[in-house]
Amino acid sequence: MFLVSSSCPFSSRSMASKTPVGFVGLGNMGTPMAKNLLKNGYPVIATDVFPESRKELQDTGAQVVDSPADVAEKADRIITMLPSSPNVIEVYTGPNGILKKVKKGTLLIDSSTIDPAVSKEMAVAAEKMGAVFMDAPVSGGVGAASMGKLTFMVGGVEQEYNAAQELLTCMGANVVYCGQVGTGQAAKICNNMLLAIGMIGTAETMNLGIRLGLDPKLLAKILNMSSGRCWSSDTYNPVPGVMEGVPSANSYQGGFGTTLMAKDLGLAQNTATNTKTTIPLGSLAHQIYRVMCARGYANKDFSSVFQFLREEEGQ
Amino acid sequence: MFLVSSSCPFSSRSMASKTPVGFVGLGNMGTPMAKNLLKNGYPVIATDVFPESRKELQDTGAQVVDSPADVAEKADRIITMLPSSPNVIEVYTGPNGILKKVKKGTLLIDSSTIDPAVSKEMAVAAEKMGAVFMDAPVSGGVGAASMGKLTFMVGGVEQEYNAAQELLTCMGANVVYCGQVGTGQAAKICNNMLLAIGMIGTAETMNLGIRLGLDPKLLAKILNMSSGRCWSSDTYNPVPGVMEGVPSANSYQGGFGTTLMAKDLGLAQNTATNTKTTIPLGSLAHQIYRVMCARGYANKDFSSVFQFLREEEGQ
Amino acid sequence: MFLVSSSCPFSSRSMASKTPVGFVGLGNMGTPMAKNLLKNGYPVIATDVFPESRKELQDTGAQVVDSPADVAEKADRIITMLPSSPNVIEVYTGPNGILKKVKKGTLLIDSSTIDPAVSKEMAVAAEKMGAVFMDAPVSGGVGAASMGKLTFMVGGVEQEYNAAQELLTCMGANVVYCGQVGTGQAAKICNNMLLAIGMIGTAETMNLGIRLGLDPKLLAKILNMSSGRCWSSDTYNPVPGVMEGVPSANSYQGGFGTTLMAKDLGLAQNTATNTKTTIPLGSLAHQIYRVMCARGYANKDFSSVFQFLREEEGQ
Amino acid sequence: MFLVSSSCPFSSRSMASKTPVGFVGLGNMGTPMAKNLLKNGYPVIATDVFPESRKELQDTGAQVVDSPADVAEKADRIITMLPSSPNVIEVYTGPNGILKKVKKGTLLIDSSTIDPAVSKEMAVAAEKMGAVFMDAPVSGGVGAASMGKLTFMVGGVEQEYNAAQELLTCMGANVVYCGQVGTGQAAKICNNMLLAIGMIGTAETMNLGIRLGLDPKLLAKILNMSSGRCWSSDTYNPVPGVMEGVPSANSYQGGFGTTLMAKDLGLAQNTATNTKTTIPLGSLAHQIYRVMCARGYANKDFSSVFQFLREEEGQ
Repeated sequence: MFLVSSSCPFSSRSMASKTPVGFVGLGNMGTPMAKNLLKNGYPVIATDVFPESRKELQDTGAQVVDSPADVAEKADRIITMLPSSPNVIEVYTGPNGILKKVKKGTLLIDSSTIDPAVSKEMAVAAEKMGAVFMDAPVSGGVGAASMGKLTFMVGGVEQEYNAAQELLTCMGANVVYCGQVGTGQAAKICNNMLLAIGMIGTAETMNLGIRLGLDPKLLAKILNMSSGRCWSSDTYNPVPGVMEGVPSANSYQGGFGTTLMAKDLGLAQNTATNTKTTIPLGSLAHQIYRVMCARGYANKDFSSVFQFLREEEGQ
Repeated sequence: MFLVSSSCPFSSRSMASKTPVGFVGLGNMGTPMAKNLLKNGYPVIATDVFPESRKELQDTGAQVVDSPADVAEKADRIITMLPSSPNVIEVYTGPNGILKKVKKGTLLIDSSTIDPAVSKEMAVAAEKMGAVFMDAPVSGGVGAASMGKLTFMVGGVEQEYNAAQELLTCMGANVVYCGQVGTGQAAKICNNMLLAIGMIGTAETMNLGIRLGLDPKLLAKILNMSSGRCWSSDTYNPVPGVMEGVPSANSYQGGFGTTLMAKDLGLAQNTATNTKTTIPLGSLAHQIYRVMCARGYANKDFSSVFQFLREEEGQ
Repeated sequence: MFLVSSSCPFSSRSMASKTPVGFVGLGNMGTPMAKNLLKNGYPVIATDVFPESRKELQDTGAQVVDSPADVAEKADRIITMLPSSPNVIEVYTGPNGILKKVKKGTLLIDSSTIDPAVSKEMAVAAEKMGAVFMDAPVSGGVGAASMGKLTFMVGGVEQEYNAAQELLTCMGANVVYCGQVGTGQAAKICNNMLLAIGMIGTAETMNLGIRLGLDPKLLAKILNMSSGRCWSSDTYNPVPGVMEGVPSANSYQGGFGTTLMAKDLGLAQNTATNTKTTIPLGSLAHQIYRVMCARGYANKDFSSVFQFLREEEGQ
Repeated sequence: MFLVSSSCPFSSRSMASKTPVGFVGLGNMGTPMAKNLLKNGYPVIATDVFPESRKELQDTGAQVVDSPADVAEKADRIITMLPSSPNVIEVYTGPNGILKKVKKGTLLIDSSTIDPAVSKEMAVAAEKMGAVFMDAPVSGGVGAASMGKLTFMVGGVEQEYNAAQELLTCMGANVVYCGQVGTGQAAKICNNMLLAIGMIGTAETMNLGIRLGLDPKLLAKILNMSSGRCWSSDTYNPVPGVMEGVPSANSYQGGFGTTLMAKDLGLAQNTATNTKTTIPLGSLAHQIYRVMCARGYANKDFSSVFQFLREEEGQ
């Protein structure tokens, strides 16, 4: 395992020496990531389905082209950041996809969060064209993307890891090598499943403690010095008033939305079903976040499960 | 909130100055706790339903009597450590119970893990006799009891807390004041419910990651630096080979048994049902530990849920 | 097992020959039940905590007294119909309770839905006074109570069953003997737990089928001729438009309220926890009805779980 | 909706008038189905990956060929009966697949139980070749297949339904038209999900009732006359001794295996996840059957969940 916590090693060098980097997918996450490459002196050749997104990056200094195939023609290192598996399949293997014009030896890094089985399929398709595909999903949201503080979990051939790392350290604070292709996705999915379980568990535990007469701050303190401790209890407590600077202190605005958590749990459920793995709590966590999406919590931070589960006065 | 992490304040004093302490319930936990009181210079007046347990403590220097009522006659500070709610009710309010002969002003400290509603009933019954009842369940097992390293979570009238603390610090490393009577139990139950959820969550997450090709040690490392981190992932990992010195490294022997966890989750479920609190994951965790008891895991450490959920080869 | 589906065997007899029947608990269910006794020619001696309820029954011809003890003084057959376990304990064993003045040989029939363990306690307490206690909870709502169409599930000494049956057939269409004291409650709790599981299962199955393009009426028809068939799919379908004359055809008004189902599932959960019985789906059904109570579904029919689980447009 | 419960309408006609029917997939289900076509006078052209299966059908009078493509060359009505989605994809779109040599106007009927999304893909691929694809999964096991008593749930273009029905009635007792392509699968998946929920629910309810002192036969009788009634309680009761002629009366041998139920629940979970449908009990039922596969119940009938959940003596 390689864990790197450094800033971009080339950030002080002159632009002249750097070869261009392709970037496909200029959404909320992709745009700040591409900008960080530019800041670090990499010429960027980018595209997106939305013209406004292309325009924004062009104004920052990137060269914009029409399609993923065009990107592949001009760059031999390409990063993709897309919403879901079908988009990744289209961008790589579609009629104007990267693989239509990819050059031999090109390094393809996909930072989307998708089914690891799709990552493996893309790696096989890329290999047939003489290119190398790695999955490198991120943890951290839009804020971390802007500040270059993302964590990348990387799966793929180990020999290519150094080359990937050079670029990823310009966009993230931590880069972790996880193993063969798909293991980056696997690590991401596993972490978020346990996160969801810990968050719902913390929410219901805090609810129960309050009902039984405990002060929420005191209960959090006791849990955090005991075996109930978890990230959701000590760093991102879901009960308003227990911590400052977290979504629960701000009406559950900002943070990591319930729909995004439901999507990641859907990926966890699919990979578990397809590998015949038993995940009872992960499965129930998925169902809870799904029903929250149906009941008006879609755009609130995922810690709002505390509020969702809480019985109203008078019931 | 008061949190004390000191050793017993009187441990260097001479024995002569100390008044006797009563102790009812000389099981696996009660015996080492009573011995620590003796070590710290307190005369102990003890009883238990089993003659062998009485004999063992007598040999260590305690005075042994026939019934809880007899203890109450001779001591004005009494600690009880019993298996479950019905035992507590019997020991306090039964025909030979403490309250039959309790002296006015006696301090009663119950370290059993029971339903907080029963603690409240006992407090009311004690008050009628002019005595004071506090609940002070422990976290930590037989080992911690022997070394005087238990954590006590204390509920009861705040003015009496100092008096309780004097004794509890002889048997534990941490003493936490939680609030009114019953909140010690509430804190214990809440912690153990979140612990169970975190453990099952960690087990299924590790299982899924391994299925997806991740090395278990690496996955644990990634979780522990990310938002999936919890006590079960970083301190008590359930996967054999990931950590040393935990039950998973020793065929799930020792540690905290599945039946004990099932019992605590039953208490959590009862208090949640009776207070109309929604605990979806806590409820499912309870069911999982119940079915484990039925399928041969009753006496293994509760981290054996990793093994229970794991699909065998060839399925 | 005795199953009786007849009308009251004495309904055509003259009033003169009948000894009075006591009735405690004149709520939504108790009042029409007591009226049916009156209609069938039984003098009724009744009481309730609310004066208005007493007044209403007095106007129908009952004699009204001040307390359960007063009822016990004047009647040697008494029926009780109360909201929950604590009320039953109070009415039987409280300071003005039935057992304070109960006559030897009195037949006590409790039609409340409560914890079977409490029924057993009441039976023991009654036996000490020389009286006989039977539990006889009902299935069927206010409508069935008015029309004398309730089903009674009866637990208690078999020799007394005939005497109980005489009265119960005046209020119900079916009377079932279930076994020893507490088994009437057990049967009721078991039925309602399976009912809740079947209803939620039907709701999510119908939801899934509709999402997959099936017409709801056709899907119901297929399920009802196949192994998915259950009472909730063929008699009380939760999808608006599939059946006439059920709550789903009337905005989920009327029927069996979500809070009542949550209460019965709480009883099922408590008895399961206390007998160490694993009920994974029953447990989750309980949690779902609890969270529905918290999210505005408390007073809707329990089939509204279909609506609760349904994703809104645009999510 | 069309529901046909007749025997094969052409069974008395002479063989001469019938055109051949192709059959791919000669497993436990496919072989008796193909034999029923032969019995009804249809020439059958068949293939399978296993030579022994081909041999068996050849001995019964079928013409055997090497590949699905060869079947397509010789028959313009083809039935496929395969274990899972990947097999269906291979048999239709693989290098020697049906679509390589399919004739215009050919009717393709897939009786496999697979993801409805795959059925839709196959229909699109078939349409491109001028052929028509319908999904027609069955309910009923090997026995029903042998006796021609299967139920077919059919999805596809309505105009082609009559042609499909002609063949399906030779192999089944019921044929139900469900709607557009994929709805046959949807109906099958929905039914089996509700079946699984009903079975586990019945198992835990019977377990709880027995614990509470009810006679299992009496409890089943009460449930079956009440709102807890379902197919698993009244037709396929999981408790040994309650019914004759069901797997629970025969050590859970025969019937519908736990692995098969786990597979169908996996399909239900996948379609629910992909359509963002909330299925809390279906999800948990899936997890329970998965863990049963891991704990030695893989080859027992799915009603063995009664045994799986039951606490052993002495726990």
